Amino acid sequence: MEELMFITSNSHKYEEFSHAIGKTEIMGKHYKMKYIEVQADTIDLVAMASATQIASYMSKPFVIEDSGISIDVLSGFPGPYSSFVFQTIGNQGILDLMRDKERRSASFRSVFILFDGIEFHKFTGESQGVLETTQKGDMGFGYDPIFVPYCRDGTLCDKTYAQLPIELKNELSHRGKSLEKLIEYLSKE
Amino acid sequence: MEELMFITSNSHKYEEFSHAIGKTEIMGKHYKMKYIEVQADTIDLVAMASATQIASYMSKPFVIEDSGISIDVLSGFPGPYSSFVFQTIGNQGILDLMRDKERRSASFRSVFILFDGIEFHKFTGESQGVLETTQKGDMGFGYDPIFVPYCRDGTLCDKTYAQLPIELKNELSHRGKSLEKLIEYLSKE
Repeated sequence: MEELMFITSNSHKYEEFSHAIGKTEIMGKHYKMKYIEVQADTIDLVAMASATQIASYMSKPFVIEDSGISIDVLSGFPGPYSSFVFQTIGNQGILDLMRDKERRSASFRSVFILFDGIEFHKFTGESQGVLETTQKGDMGFGYDPIFVPYCRDGTLCDKTYAQLPIELKNELSHRGKSLEKLIEYLSKE
Repeated sequence: MEELMFITSNSHKYEEFSHAIGKTEIMGKHYKMKYIEVQADTIDLVAMASATQIASYMSKPFVIEDSGISIDVLSGFPGPYSSFVFQTIGNQGILDLMRDKERRSASFRSVFILFDGIEFHKFTGESQGVLETTQKGDMGFGYDPIFVPYCRDGTLCDKTYAQLPIELKNELSHRGKSLEKLIEYLSKE
């Protein structure tokens, strides 16, 4: 396979992608572009709608990714609108909404859609965790400073995503998991 | 003009529309349907994208409406995602976000798009106001119980939207104002 374009306006996402494929023979390319997303209840639908739209004018293979965090006690908020919510109320807004809330569970979901030039393939990853009461760490992006994931051994980590360097975040994170599946698929091709 | 279809899945919006056209010769019809909306920074863009999409398969004239509330101190949140945010964190979530906030100004915006079978026409209305600290009233829908509009004389009302019967809400509200412009346009036809 030639260079695989990852179409995203988010440099942090590309960095995680780039780090993950670094150990493989896959060559990546950052195609920095915003595209129109639909409003839908799930990020899976949002991602698939975007991919089909982009494929209508992009003949080469590409991947896109959509991700979001869903907070259980807030009925899944901010979910598919995680990006907009982050840009407006930010992590402090989430902490304000979660003040006095005992149930602090949340999950991150990442959906990669690969368009191979003919068909679409979906690769998903989830990460369960809990929300911190304050922001911790300055790595990563978005909600990383308030999300504490579970480790692979099933115990809660003692760090937020933002306190983990990329290689450790990729081992645990929703995007790390979806990337692992994407890479496994591409390596078999 | 024959019956004008208002395409909306929201019965409250149709009720306000129906009330407003009640005094005119315009005949309305509720076409209860959900349609795909795009994610965009403004409700004007969301509404226009929806209208063009619906017009691609709907040959008859129709109107659609999109509206949202923007809270100044929250960078415009929830804006174009007002509906989703209401369904998840609700009015209590907004009140939690606004706890301890001194600057409580917000504005509602309503955008009607009329497709006359050939062209699109946009009618907008805005309503400035402030957010209450508790929910008051049980009329209306959505954010009505926490929004106190300014009256036409420029002073702050002593009631929330949810404490006003439809005819009074329509006199002051964002949707009342956009409806007024829509009706004025249709009456001249």
